[in-house]
Amino acid sequence: MGEYNILENIKEPRDLDKLDQKQVESLCGEIREKLISTVSKKGGHLASNLGVVELTVALHRNFNFPADKLIFDVGHQCYTHKLLTGRYDRFETLREKDGLTGFMSPKESEYDSFLTGHSSTSISAGCGFAAAKTIKGEDGYVVCVIGDGALSGGLAYEGLNNAGKRGGNFIVILNDNKMSISKNVGGMARHLTVVRTSPAYHKFKRGTGRILQRIPLIGTKAYRGAERVKNAFKRLIYRKTIFEDMGFTYLGPIDGHDLEKLDLILDAAKHQRRPTLVHISTVKGKGYEFAEESPSAYHGVSAFDIDTGERKTSGTDYSKSFGNSLCKMAAADSRICAVTAAMGESTGLGAFSHAYPKRYFDVGIAEQHAVTFCSALAASELIPVFAVYSSFLQRAYDQLVHDAAAQSLKLVLGIDRAGIVGEDGITHQGVFDVAFLNTIPNVTIYAPVTFNELDTYLYKATYEAPSVAAVRYPRGGECELPSFYQNATGSFAVYGNGENAIVTYGRTASQAFKAAAHLKNIRVVVLYQIKPIDLNSVKSVLDCKNIYFFEEGMRVGGVGEHFEVLCRENGYNGEFSLTAIEDEFIPQQTVAQALNEYGLDAEGIYRKVVGNNGTKA
Amino acid sequence: MGEYNILENIKEPRDLDKLDQKQVESLCGEIREKLISTVSKKGGHLASNLGVVELTVALHRNFNFPADKLIFDVGHQCYTHKLLTGRYDRFETLREKDGLTGFMSPKESEYDSFLTGHSSTSISAGCGFAAAKTIKGEDGYVVCVIGDGALSGGLAYEGLNNAGKRGGNFIVILNDNKMSISKNVGGMARHLTVVRTSPAYHKFKRGTGRILQRIPLIGTKAYRGAERVKNAFKRLIYRKTIFEDMGFTYLGPIDGHDLEKLDLILDAAKHQRRPTLVHISTVKGKGYEFAEESPSAYHGVSAFDIDTGERKTSGTDYSKSFGNSLCKMAAADSRICAVTAAMGESTGLGAFSHAYPKRYFDVGIAEQHAVTFCSALAASELIPVFAVYSSFLQRAYDQLVHDAAAQSLKLVLGIDRAGIVGEDGITHQGVFDVAFLNTIPNVTIYAPVTFNELDTYLYKATYEAPSVAAVRYPRGGECELPSFYQNATGSFAVYGNGENAIVTYGRTASQAFKAAAHLKNIRVVVLYQIKPIDLNSVKSVLDCKNIYFFEEGMRVGGVGEHFEVLCRENGYNGEFSLTAIEDEFIPQQTVAQALNEYGLDAEGIYRKVVGNNGTKA
Repeated sequence: MGEYNILENIKEPRDLDKLDQKQVESLCGEIREKLISTVSKKGGHLASNLGVVELTVALHRNFNFPADKLIFDVGHQCYTHKLLTGRYDRFETLREKDGLTGFMSPKESEYDSFLTGHSSTSISAGCGFAAAKTIKGEDGYVVCVIGDGALSGGLAYEGLNNAGKRGGNFIVILNDNKMSISKNVGGMARHLTVVRTSPAYHKFKRGTGRILQRIPLIGTKAYRGAERVKNAFKRLIYRKTIFEDMGFTYLGPIDGHDLEKLDLILDAAKHQRRPTLVHISTVKGKGYEFAEESPSAYHGVSAFDIDTGERKTSGTDYSKSFGNSLCKMAAADSRICAVTAAMGESTGLGAFSHAYPKRYFDVGIAEQHAVTFCSALAASELIPVFAVYSSFLQRAYDQLVHDAAAQSLKLVLGIDRAGIVGEDGITHQGVFDVAFLNTIPNVTIYAPVTFNELDTYLYKATYEAPSVAAVRYPRGGECELPSFYQNATGSFAVYGNGENAIVTYGRTASQAFKAAAHLKNIRVVVLYQIKPIDLNSVKSVLDCKNIYFFEEGMRVGGVGEHFEVLCRENGYNGEFSLTAIEDEFIPQQTVAQALNEYGLDAEGIYRKVVGNNGTKA
Repeated sequence: MGEYNILENIKEPRDLDKLDQKQVESLCGEIREKLISTVSKKGGHLASNLGVVELTVALHRNFNFPADKLIFDVGHQCYTHKLLTGRYDRFETLREKDGLTGFMSPKESEYDSFLTGHSSTSISAGCGFAAAKTIKGEDGYVVCVIGDGALSGGLAYEGLNNAGKRGGNFIVILNDNKMSISKNVGGMARHLTVVRTSPAYHKFKRGTGRILQRIPLIGTKAYRGAERVKNAFKRLIYRKTIFEDMGFTYLGPIDGHDLEKLDLILDAAKHQRRPTLVHISTVKGKGYEFAEESPSAYHGVSAFDIDTGERKTSGTDYSKSFGNSLCKMAAADSRICAVTAAMGESTGLGAFSHAYPKRYFDVGIAEQHAVTFCSALAASELIPVFAVYSSFLQRAYDQLVHDAAAQSLKLVLGIDRAGIVGEDGITHQGVFDVAFLNTIPNVTIYAPVTFNELDTYLYKATYEAPSVAAVRYPRGGECELPSFYQNATGSFAVYGNGENAIVTYGRTASQAFKAAAHLKNIRVVVLYQIKPIDLNSVKSVLDCKNIYFFEEGMRVGGVGEHFEVLCRENGYNGEFSLTAIEDEFIPQQTVAQALNEYGLDAEGIYRKVVGNNGTKA
């Protein structure tokens, strides 16, 4: 391993032109080895990257990026693209602080035309690039690479709906691996199955003309309608996919691991006069047997052993804990339903999906639908629980306002990956949910600290909150807490009676206790219900001289500012210091690094308190 | 006019069963008369309601609501539904405070199963109702009525994608009038045109079997492939629309004003074993010549003269003023593009669309796409301006975060209908935009008061703000201001030097000046740049004894709380009183009524100041 004779000499895509076909094939092997080797050490997206090695090589051989524009949807499959565009030397810094990002990043390279991370944006972005080329009179192509999973998102459809009016310079590559992160669902997925398997469908390799020539005219006298039948058949061949209905020329499907076919079809796509969709079939995890066998498990991974495929088991985490609690509740209450947007396993719903398949709904990458769907379940007196990553819930803001909260419906949100998420970086941080949920009337938000509390507040959200209720919890394992910590059941808890109060919520409580252990005259107040704020929690600090609020989330619109205003309204005249995420985006780094940088770890909390009034223990 | 002999006796839908066919036809006439008469007095949605009179009557004759569930997408076409479900007597209270709402409202009637107002939610909601019926073992149908315009929204597609797995009790009525609010756009619209006009498509009336029988077998010996051709033809007939590709049975298209055909097709739909899409063609504005001629103009109207169709011209308003300013800028700068989500005329872009058609993009009801599309235009060094109602921008929250702001792209938002909107009510209030934009890094928000300032701050948003920049302005005509008011160009302005400061922004400034005219010792501070807050605006009130902040928007996450925190951080120790929209939704009423109720009109401002410290003038 570690022989990258061809790959290490690719300094830019045009270096590919010097390779013969055999060398290109070897290059693909080297790339796969590099991907497996690096991801086994650094973690990251593996299966999706292994699936598009040949495609990416073919794209760079057939197009002229960055003059042509390339957008990988989601971007978790762009590692090969990074290796071919001058980033081979830095590839080992993948997902590190100040290293290469795991997604498309315009700041990192001019070859990354558009920031990606969330699903289903590529076609809309492509429309923008293509329209700009038209306005500016520029030549060149726009190529969007989108998986069949990402096609389940409404934004992808909005893009397709608008793309039909673009010209022949607009190419969508449908990378069909029959998967979202887990198995793909929905009508579009079934449609693609039909397209893939129907013999009547246009096989690119055979050439369209030859198929038509094979249909005999059947004797014009014998049947007046023969020509009509032929035309109908012609339309069946030419106009049979949804994409054609939406205004695209459709080419495919072909084997996305066959370099020759890829060259042929991409060349053909460049010569269409209309927007063109190229359908390629790929195998997620291609070339690494463990990933081919379990592509879901190898979608996003932490470090693993290459030879055995063994991954470090991280033990139980908040997601699994959430899933266990929900299963327990569902056993006792047949009204409880679980909904996921293509993240069943990752949000801990695996067990639920097996135990209660009729009450389990994977709606695809469709957070908007998930919330509106849940709202109607709730209007039918069921109890829907939508488990979703904080960052992806952003996509359902309007549905939360308009469909759920405005009707005061009881919808429970299990908000996973709340707070800083680490290596996935800028597009995946869970730092907005509190601030945007704070703007919505009728919403209750709980922030448990322990697994035990997650169970408690999930129950409260389900049975005590008046309307939409969110329970939010971070990625990873349970945080460390001092031995005197007691699992909470109320809206807040007070530890100590010092004149200086640290107020916080969620995972930060753990850091607060660590800091407090080294501080004198300190009081730690942990909020568990962060919306609406219990006025008693405010009253619990009104006698303090200094209040230090720490929030692992956006400052403006967050809990801290509101808490201060409530303190002031209730007569507090002391100092109030708020540490939160300021008006900026957080780049990739470990969670620990980010907490440190934003002053939200024990050290930062300690320094803030000591710095202000010197009450060092 | 005014003879409603049949209509006034319909107290509930089952009363329709007593009518013979001729009476039903007369009823439709009476309903049309009632719709035109009421909307001519109260304003509201006219053309869309006139288009679905027969459909609504047929639905209530063929289904058993509310046991069956009916969801009108958007809901602006549900007036006939209201007239037939026990609300005839109250129909004259339409759109009044405490009167009937102009949309579906579960609080108002058990026949309104789900709150509507925003587009494209019905299929997702229908999926939820249908799934709930399955879980609960209930019989009965779920019927979603959706226009072709609403189909351009991604949420509708997410719904369709998930609906295919529902059972035969799930029916979608596609009300195809070839229009969004204005002419419909996009690939789906073109597809529907093909479906409507192709002779090969399944005409419901003729019966599917008969079509197939007409295809001769052509002699099996003559051509082995004949059966294959026949099957192909069969599939052409049966599997030709996008809806069939997505798992629906497709029935139609039929004339949606033909009661007999409607009865036949709805009955057929009830007997399918799979989710069924019924395609009906209707004429928007049907039965009122002025509305048929100009359906866009009669989509949502204020009061008008029935005989002449003449509507009260309201003079210029913020939307038109915005459009004029943008045209002026576009004339000088060829990079400026205008984008609308199916609201070109209503957002004042009419003139732009004619003057700069190549730089004008109507993307359909697709706010998510609009923002991502704009982001790519911006990444291509063009200057996109997205004109959008505040309430509808909610749907693009994630795209604003992830595609625009995270890349620091220069995208200009013209946020129309900012603040309280009045009669459209709970689903349309523009009171969230400031709070949710406040959560997003890199965003600048301007709140001009006058038309002149709208021009100024649109220019600043375009050329001075560093990244995403929003200019927000209310519905309607320019607000009244005192003669000493000077059009602003900075981030704030101070009037007077009293010890008590009224701080506000946007339209509320007008009310503040009215109140201030009756107050002594008062200072009025108007903020024009509300994000980020200019610290000098904070410093301008630090010497005050009392600060009264008035905000026509959500309290938590709004400008007022953040402004208070900044005042405190800068040493302010006086009283701070914040009047804003508390944690609740605002029902329909006139803007004046709502401002009064929330203490945001001159009277409320005056009372708040006097009540607190008695500085009456």
